[in-house]
Amino acid sequence: MEEWTVEVHHSKTKKDKPKTDQLEFGRIFTDHMFIMDYSEPVGWHDPRIVPYQPLTIDPSAMTFHYGQSVFEGLKAYHTPDGDIQLFRPEKNLQRLNRSNDRLCIPPVDEAFVLEAIKQLVFLDREWIPTSEGTSLYIRPFIISTEPFIGVAPSHQYKLIVILSPVGAYYKEGINPVKIAVENQYVRAVKGGTGEAKTGGNYAASLKAQELCAQKGFTQVLWLDGVEKKYIEEVGSMNVFFKINGEVITPELNGSILEGVTRNSVIQLLKHWDIPVIEKKVSLDELHEAYMSGTLEEAFGTGTAAVISPIGQLSWEEHDLFINEGNTGKTAKALYDTLTGIQYGREQDPFDWVEIVNEKSAVK
Amino acid sequence: MEEWTVEVHHSKTKKDKPKTDQLEFGRIFTDHMFIMDYSEPVGWHDPRIVPYQPLTIDPSAMTFHYGQSVFEGLKAYHTPDGDIQLFRPEKNLQRLNRSNDRLCIPPVDEAFVLEAIKQLVFLDREWIPTSEGTSLYIRPFIISTEPFIGVAPSHQYKLIVILSPVGAYYKEGINPVKIAVENQYVRAVKGGTGEAKTGGNYAASLKAQELCAQKGFTQVLWLDGVEKKYIEEVGSMNVFFKINGEVITPELNGSILEGVTRNSVIQLLKHWDIPVIEKKVSLDELHEAYMSGTLEEAFGTGTAAVISPIGQLSWEEHDLFINEGNTGKTAKALYDTLTGIQYGREQDPFDWVEIVNEKSAVK
Repeated sequence: MEEWTVEVHHSKTKKDKPKTDQLEFGRIFTDHMFIMDYSEPVGWHDPRIVPYQPLTIDPSAMTFHYGQSVFEGLKAYHTPDGDIQLFRPEKNLQRLNRSNDRLCIPPVDEAFVLEAIKQLVFLDREWIPTSEGTSLYIRPFIISTEPFIGVAPSHQYKLIVILSPVGAYYKEGINPVKIAVENQYVRAVKGGTGEAKTGGNYAASLKAQELCAQKGFTQVLWLDGVEKKYIEEVGSMNVFFKINGEVITPELNGSILEGVTRNSVIQLLKHWDIPVIEKKVSLDELHEAYMSGTLEEAFGTGTAAVISPIGQLSWEEHDLFINEGNTGKTAKALYDTLTGIQYGREQDPFDWVEIVNEKSAVK
Repeated sequence: MEEWTVEVHHSKTKKDKPKTDQLEFGRIFTDHMFIMDYSEPVGWHDPRIVPYQPLTIDPSAMTFHYGQSVFEGLKAYHTPDGDIQLFRPEKNLQRLNRSNDRLCIPPVDEAFVLEAIKQLVFLDREWIPTSEGTSLYIRPFIISTEPFIGVAPSHQYKLIVILSPVGAYYKEGINPVKIAVENQYVRAVKGGTGEAKTGGNYAASLKAQELCAQKGFTQVLWLDGVEKKYIEEVGSMNVFFKINGEVITPELNGSILEGVTRNSVIQLLKHWDIPVIEKKVSLDELHEAYMSGTLEEAFGTGTAAVISPIGQLSWEEHDLFINEGNTGKTAKALYDTLTGIQYGREQDPFDWVEIVNEKSAVK
C-alpha cells in the first residue's frame, strides 16, 4: 500500500474547542476522522480523511451481533518547544495486527496506518491541548460491517481513527487508588481473547467493575480464570508489585494484554538497574510479602493513567494498605520519567517518541 | 410500559421477496424493523416500527469499542392452516434480560417487546416463506450507543428487531456432521460471559471455527476453560449424548448458554420417559462409552438447525464414528417432533407455540 495516498475532505465548519478545565476523557471529538474500507477481493482500500460524522451502517452488520471488532489507544502530546509527538505508536499498530489475527480480521499495513494517523493528528493539531497533563487521545478501531447475521468472519470491515482531547488524568497529582480482588467474575482465560484488544474483554469486565464501585473501590484486581489464584490485571491496566527491592509483574500467558506502558516500564526499570521479573504472581505470595513487610509498592500501568499507584488491596477479610496508602518512590519515578519523555521534557534514550509535523500532512 | 403503543411508519416501497430456492441464512431482510431507545432518566422509550434502514451512529458509540451488546434469535413459522406461530418466544425474552443483567444493560419489559415482535412479524407476514423447512428468523438485539469511549456501562441503548426469511437448514434431509474437539481455544469460562448471548462469545469462537474448517470439520466441540476436560457446547449449539439408553447433556454451569431448544429437548425426552440427565460430561467418559460400545448417539441443539446429529468426533489420534455416522433414532424423533410442533403439524402438549394474528397488529 506504500504508493497510496489519503484523500482529504476538509470539514467546512470547525467545532468549538473545549476549555482545558472542561476536558474529560473520551467525550469530545475533533473536526476530522480517518476511514479505510476492506472488502474482498480488493482488500483494504479508499483511505480517506473526512469531517467527523456519524457512520451509516446496516442493522444486520456483523459488528452489532458477534463482536468481531478490535481497537487501540494512544496519545499525541505537545512538547514545550511546540512539537507534537507520539509515544511508541508502532507498538500499537503491531498489537492491532495481533488482535486482528485472533479475531480473524485481515491485517492492516502498519506503516501506512501510522502515516495516516500522523496526517490526521497534524490536520487537527489545534485540538491538542497544551496545559499540563493534557493530550490528544487517538482511537483506531476496526468493525465488521458485512450485512450478514451468520456466525463467521466478516468479508467487509471499516478501520476508523477518531481523536479526542483529554484532560489530565490526575487533576490533583498522582493519587493511590483502592482495589478489590475479584473472586467471582473473570475477565479472560487462556485460550480466550484476553491477549487481544477486543470489545468482548471489556464488556465482560463491566459487571465486576459496577459491583466493586458500589463497595467504594476504584477498580478490581483480576485473577486467572483457571485457578483464581494468580494475578492478571488491574481494571484495564497491567499491574506491577515491588517486593523486597525487586519489581515483579505477571508474565504474558495468553490472557493478559501486552501493554505498551507495561513494556516501557520494564525497559525503564532495567535501564535503572532495578531488578524486574516477569513471572506468575499469586495472591498468596503477595499476602505473605505484605505480612512480612516486604511488599513495598503496587501500581497499574496503562495509556490513560500511565502509572496508577495502588494504596489499598482488599479481599475477604484482608485489607492490605500498601506503602501506608501513599505513592511509592518507584511508581513516582516511573510516572515522572515516562510522562517526561512523552511530553518531550526529558531526554528519550530509547528512541520512543515520534514527531508529527508538516511532512505527515503532505504524503 | 403496558399502556405504550408502537408507532408504525409504513415503508413506501416493498422489496422483492426471494424465491424459496434463493433463501439462505441471514442475508435478506424484510421491509420493516422495530426500534426502541433507552436514555436516562426516561428509560426505554419511543417504540416504533419503521422501514428497514441503515442505522446512523456516532463512531464513538460504545458498541463499536467495548462490546456491550446482546442479542436473541427465534423464528416465526407458517402452519399448514395458514397460521403464523412463534415457538416459546417468552424464553428468548427472559434470556435477553438475563444477558442484559450480565452486560449491565437495563432490562426490557418482556411482555411489551414480545407484543412488538408479534406486531412486526404480522406486518411483514408476506415475508414468511411457506415451503418445507423454511421460516422467518427474528433477530432482536441491543447495542450501546452513548458517544463516549470510556470503559463503563453506556447510558444510551437501542433495541432493534430485524427479520430475515431463511431456507431449510437441511436441504437434503437431516445430516450428521464431523466435529473436532477444540484443545487450544476456549469459548467461555465460569465467571465470564458464556451464559449470556453477547457478541464477545461469538467473536472468541471464530478462530477455532476457521482452523477446524480448514481441516475438514464442520464445527468444534468446546471443552471447559478450566480443566479442558469437560464438554460444554458444540459450535454455537448445546450438545447431547445418548449412552446406554440414557441421554446426558452438560449441566448449566455459568459458561454454557441455556438454549431454548436444549430446554425443549429435555422436556420432550422426559415426556417420552427416556432418562435424561444434566451433569458434568467429560471427554474421557465419552471415549470410554464409545470404546465399550454404549455411545449410541450425539447431537447438537439450537434454533437454526433444531437438531444436528454428530456423525464423527475427532481429537488427537481419536476418531469416534458415532452410530456409524448415521442419524440416530432419538435425534430423528426429536427433530420430527420439535419441527412438527413449530410448524403446527403436530399437537403441542406443552403449550409452546404462540399464534401471531391481526390482534398483534392493532395493539
